Amino acid sequence: VPKFLVNKDGSLGARNDAPCVSIEHKLGIKASPTAVLQFGDHGGAVGYLVGQENRGLEYMFIMMNAARYGVGLQGVAIAERAYQKAVQYAKDRVQSRPVDGSINASAAIIHHPDVKRMLMTMRAYTEGCRAMASTAVAAYDAAHHHPDAQVRKDNATFYEFMVPLVKGYSTEMSLEVTSLGVQVHGGMGFIEETGAAQYYRDAKILTIYEGTTAIQANDLVGRKTARDGGQSARAIATQIEKTEGELQASGTPAALAMARRLAAARQAYLDVVDFVCGGAKASPNAVFAGSVPYLMLAGNLVAGWQLGRSLLVAQDLLQKGQDEAFMRAKIATAQFYAEHILVKAPGLRDSIVEGAESVTALALDSF
Amino acid sequence: VPKFLVNKDGSLGARNDAPCVSIEHKLGIKASPTAVLQFGDHGGAVGYLVGQENRGLEYMFIMMNAARYGVGLQGVAIAERAYQKAVQYAKDRVQSRPVDGSINASAAIIHHPDVKRMLMTMRAYTEGCRAMASTAVAAYDAAHHHPDAQVRKDNATFYEFMVPLVKGYSTEMSLEVTSLGVQVHGGMGFIEETGAAQYYRDAKILTIYEGTTAIQANDLVGRKTARDGGQSARAIATQIEKTEGELQASGTPAALAMARRLAAARQAYLDVVDFVCGGAKASPNAVFAGSVPYLMLAGNLVAGWQLGRSLLVAQDLLQKGQDEAFMRAKIATAQFYAEHILVKAPGLRDSIVEGAESVTALALDSF
Repeated sequence: VPKFLVNKDGSLGARNDAPCVSIEHKLGIKASPTAVLQFGDHGGAVGYLVGQENRGLEYMFIMMNAARYGVGLQGVAIAERAYQKAVQYAKDRVQSRPVDGSINASAAIIHHPDVKRMLMTMRAYTEGCRAMASTAVAAYDAAHHHPDAQVRKDNATFYEFMVPLVKGYSTEMSLEVTSLGVQVHGGMGFIEETGAAQYYRDAKILTIYEGTTAIQANDLVGRKTARDGGQSARAIATQIEKTEGELQASGTPAALAMARRLAAARQAYLDVVDFVCGGAKASPNAVFAGSVPYLMLAGNLVAGWQLGRSLLVAQDLLQKGQDEAFMRAKIATAQFYAEHILVKAPGLRDSIVEGAESVTALALDSF
Repeated sequence: VPKFLVNKDGSLGARNDAPCVSIEHKLGIKASPTAVLQFGDHGGAVGYLVGQENRGLEYMFIMMNAARYGVGLQGVAIAERAYQKAVQYAKDRVQSRPVDGSINASAAIIHHPDVKRMLMTMRAYTEGCRAMASTAVAAYDAAHHHPDAQVRKDNATFYEFMVPLVKGYSTEMSLEVTSLGVQVHGGMGFIEETGAAQYYRDAKILTIYEGTTAIQANDLVGRKTARDGGQSARAIATQIEKTEGELQASGTPAALAMARRLAAARQAYLDVVDFVCGGAKASPNAVFAGSVPYLMLAGNLVAGWQLGRSLLVAQDLLQKGQDEAFMRAKIATAQFYAEHILVKAPGLRDSIVEGAESVTALALDSF
């Protein structure tokens, strides 16, 4: 539906009957205007068929599937930016003495353990989700360009399983990360001039557009898990178990902490996969009641798995003396993820597997 | 510091040298303007001492302590409003067929299990925090007006322990609740006209003003837990255990589910209280690294405990045939809280007790 009708000689003709009647006032992403268009109030808007008839939905999904991955990355990007801004502020802003007495005067707030906890949470989510997105997109490349047909097929399956996790988990975590970003700034964060609040406002659209978190979770439950009886889902658990073995073999405290938390999260995930595959047809309400928590558990696990892999690489390179500060930071961040984010997985399992009925128990007119 | 100087005869004199030079642009609470004042650029602002010299901080804390409780209630209030608005929208907005095939046409989105999960989460947090705030303020009244001095003292101790929970936990949950409120609205929620986004913007100040969540957590760790060696904290656990016994004795599925989750959460809480009391002096960084998670665990537990008590009352009144729909809703909401919110407690315990070191492990210049 063009704004102007184009004459046969290529020159602009009359305006099309599709005027913009207002611009929406939105919570965020204000650099991307959202308009109300009115079609055909004065004789009818003229549109042109693009492509073949009745294939519009299919065409849209080509765009949509790429967009889902892209929106997941937007989550990672805004989280990274919120983190950088919060770190800068935490290093500048001076307030109170450190609790351990290490500085006998007011110090930059980054010296306070809770500020570190907030920054580490932001950092760990961001690195975990970025690693997950990178692994997914590498599989996408292999799915299209690897010479071996079986490898292409396996990678396509893996990538498709990853898309709802990259979209759903990375955007949900961006809400927590951008909220923590405001929190690190304290009262200044609530002032728009500071810039931290914009991330908090902008991030909220990411869990909504190109398929809400619930739509991603439906995709994960239906097309990605139940349809092949959990085969793709369990194949990922097998890969994770292999990484756990490598972490165990390495034997460092960070690797052992990661192995232990990965094993508990993987077991929780497998319980949920069994629950989803067992009940998708017989008890659809119970399964879909846990669809978003399942997505959160799976995303939490897979992002943690990638940080487990990066921990192993960082340990190797550290031993070789390469980029020591960077490698130590990778290891510290992975261990933090294991102990503060992966630990949420067993609780999610309980909610999904044992708490399905209470989601739908309330009578409709009691809401 | 008045805006106008007042003459001895009570008439208004000259403007004081304390002009408002700008109004801040804030994320939310825009009906409450925040101004930049400039003091004394043209000869000096005149201020008057209120009360006695050197007692200003003490006076401020009288206001502040009341304000902390009040801000906690603001969290409950905005959560309730966000819930009501989301319910209304979920009953109006028609989209897709229910997964269980119960309606063979597009239905109001409240029929979809994930929408129910979001609404139940909003409702359960709100009811739990409201019950916690009500219990706290009843103790405040008893602390001031009960005829027995020991009862007054016990209630004062209980109330003081509750204040950081009411302020810290209720406001943090309001972030999740208002975010879910936007989510239930989908794309419409991102449009300011809908009104759901305002709650999301407004709620963020609640975790910041009158002492951030971290400040509440410092208070909980230092003055409320470590100072009496965990005595007040453990006394609450003993009361919770009593409620668990009553739930066990009642024997209904909802009561048993609540008893089981309360017991696990209480045990997690006691582990953390031991950790806090054991390490507050020797390992302050480790203890304060877990201060906010401890506050979240304690708030989660106490709000759940209050819903456990309300479940027992509701069961009794239901048996007597009183307000059946209301009582059933209370029971369903309490069970949901147990299975979807209380279940987070053991994971928090692990983060606090076993994950303290990874919070502060990253080198400062690696942030």
